[in-house]
Amino acid sequence: MGGDHAPEEVIAGAVAAVRDHGVRLVLVGQAPRIRRELDRYGISGEIPIVHAEESLDMGEGALASWRKPRSSVAIACHLIKQGRASALVSAGSTAGVVATARLRLKSQQGVMRPAIAVTLPTRPRPTVLLDAGATSDVKAETLVQFAALGTAYAQIRLGLARPTVGLLNIGAEPGKGDKVTKNAHELLANGRHGIRFAGNVEGHDLLRSVVDVVVTDGFTGNVALKTMEGSVRMALAEVREAMTGSRTAKLGSFLQRRQLTDLRDRLDSETYGGGVLLGLNGTVVIAHGASRARAITSACVLAYELATGRIIDRIRDQVAAARTPSRLGRLMHVDRDGGGDKAEETEKAVETGPDDSAGTAPGMPAVQPSEDRPHDAANTPPDGAEIGPRRSEPPTAT
Amino acid sequence: MGGDHAPEEVIAGAVAAVRDHGVRLVLVGQAPRIRRELDRYGISGEIPIVHAEESLDMGEGALASWRKPRSSVAIACHLIKQGRASALVSAGSTAGVVATARLRLKSQQGVMRPAIAVTLPTRPRPTVLLDAGATSDVKAETLVQFAALGTAYAQIRLGLARPTVGLLNIGAEPGKGDKVTKNAHELLANGRHGIRFAGNVEGHDLLRSVVDVVVTDGFTGNVALKTMEGSVRMALAEVREAMTGSRTAKLGSFLQRRQLTDLRDRLDSETYGGGVLLGLNGTVVIAHGASRARAITSACVLAYELATGRIIDRIRDQVAAARTPSRLGRLMHVDRDGGGDKAEETEKAVETGPDDSAGTAPGMPAVQPSEDRPHDAANTPPDGAEIGPRRSEPPTAT
Repeated sequence: MGGDHAPEEVIAGAVAAVRDHGVRLVLVGQAPRIRRELDRYGISGEIPIVHAEESLDMGEGALASWRKPRSSVAIACHLIKQGRASALVSAGSTAGVVATARLRLKSQQGVMRPAIAVTLPTRPRPTVLLDAGATSDVKAETLVQFAALGTAYAQIRLGLARPTVGLLNIGAEPGKGDKVTKNAHELLANGRHGIRFAGNVEGHDLLRSVVDVVVTDGFTGNVALKTMEGSVRMALAEVREAMTGSRTAKLGSFLQRRQLTDLRDRLDSETYGGGVLLGLNGTVVIAHGASRARAITSACVLAYELATGRIIDRIRDQVAAARTPSRLGRLMHVDRDGGGDKAEETEKAVETGPDDSAGTAPGMPAVQPSEDRPHDAANTPPDGAEIGPRRSEPPTAT
Repeated sequence: MGGDHAPEEVIAGAVAAVRDHGVRLVLVGQAPRIRRELDRYGISGEIPIVHAEESLDMGEGALASWRKPRSSVAIACHLIKQGRASALVSAGSTAGVVATARLRLKSQQGVMRPAIAVTLPTRPRPTVLLDAGATSDVKAETLVQFAALGTAYAQIRLGLARPTVGLLNIGAEPGKGDKVTKNAHELLANGRHGIRFAGNVEGHDLLRSVVDVVVTDGFTGNVALKTMEGSVRMALAEVREAMTGSRTAKLGSFLQRRQLTDLRDRLDSETYGGGVLLGLNGTVVIAHGASRARAITSACVLAYELATGRIIDRIRDQVAAARTPSRLGRLMHVDRDGGGDKAEETEKAVETGPDDSAGTAPGMPAVQPSEDRPHDAANTPPDGAEIGPRRSEPPTAT
């Protein structure tokens, strides 16, 4: 139900994911409306629908997570908790989806904070940037974990066995940056965490494909990503204007229209299917709010690949490897005991309030919620499939 | 002596600043080399030279500030402390120049931390972004002061009486962002500080000319600025490639060459003359390392305008206005008493060590250093000139 073009384009994209890519999925939202749309494609029987009476508005922020316990996103999270789905795709408000997913799915064991990974259209190879906005206030150890999350993600998304990881910083030398980044550099450089650390990268390296994964906090990452989008848009607008500045230029522009359209499409974020929220007990793919059918299909296929690639198992392994017996180990212990800063505690207290009501949502299948099952079960495909798409028994995306 | 094309292009730019813009300046560096260059322009008598036996290398970082007490930058700072110059222009390593200037000039009274302001080529009006990299770890109160610094700077640089100030953040709503930014928003929104606060701005707003001044910490600002440069460069490279992708496109490209060259020039950072370090007892203009003569001339003219516009007095007034009797007032008090975090204390202790030797640098004019003169004297033109260039007795840039 989320996104500027929901539900029509979302459903069209989902149908294409099922028909053309063999993704198994459940549609969650206003059942009658969804059914009407599916009828147009003549496959209303093939795709299961789970009714959700509410949905998150596009302007809705983090508070929606508890104000709307029966939103389509909340109910989709419930399906994951029940083991009836492995991943969730939404084009709804990022803040609303992230807050709802954090509240309903909870962090997977050992993960301090979730992060949003985005894939930048760099050449020759794309680059994964995280965190793009899930966790603004981080410790050095959080950044090390983000490196682990990014490594696991890039293994599946980019198909690399040992992706290189760079730390976003304001200079190439180890001593550069704010305190948190300096400490993170030190931890990453000690090499005892299974991460292929390539040192600092700077803002101008983000689009140069110098590393496979770039790690930063959610504040800097979000600013960098939006700055990038704004800059590219501005540069292309300037080019367009420069191209029509004179008569000869206008003719030139006419001759090049095709090339520029191709370029814009390639740089357009829609092609890249938004971000992925990593570190929770279930994979959450957040498609761009402006997504049309093609972007939704990409998002569904990505969710499918992450589930078949056992992203949650990989994250568990990477995070365990990153948990060195030193400083990080101690901190992780504190974190498991419920430590952490006060602001975060307050936030949790507020968010947790209405969680209990989620189980009573109407339209929810009558399966007992299993809060305490192993954290990785949500992501295990029923047939125990290894990496690589399979037609027989693929995991289900909602 | 600093910059990729020093001293030839630096001297050429300085000569143009003197001849075409009436800037009075002193050249600091290897006297024999400078004299040889000046001879080529036939004005060796008109521009005074102060010899400096050392200079900062381009790769040199913050440590250079105490490793080279006789660098041309250190000696130029000394001229400012003596009241013999009002501002300093360098195309040397940013880290080296910033560290040297911080050590030699010290923060002006009431200013917690310095910031680097850069002017973005936005349309219809340029936007000032600060901090671009001087202070990575900030408190909310530091960001409020940066807003005061940016307001004073934009008044002169952009000629606006009451420039609008935006806070760089990851969402438009007040509750967005990391803790420091949230608190800064609260302080700025209370309105008792003489700052025309326009709320949060996001990464994609940076190039949209939505506010006159954008405030952020030096870490985020540096990443955003470099991301912007990298993105624009990437987009133009893609355009160039797209334009030669086919035969018709090639012809189009030929017809548009002129327009694209103009565009590149406009977006090129060289045109915008680098950053300005604000908040010290003397104005420091840091030209881009790749600066050629034209950029150096712009930097000299900017330094001249800032001095004639009494930037240091304006900053003093703005910072005083921003010092509300509440939380910020208490903090400022602590700061004046030498408070602050431990890391900063250690840094200061290390940096202060070799400061005493600066006074004994050879080639330094035999004028008694006056450490305890009023903090704003360095920026007061000898004739007490008001804003606006004057030919008669303009301030001296080194």
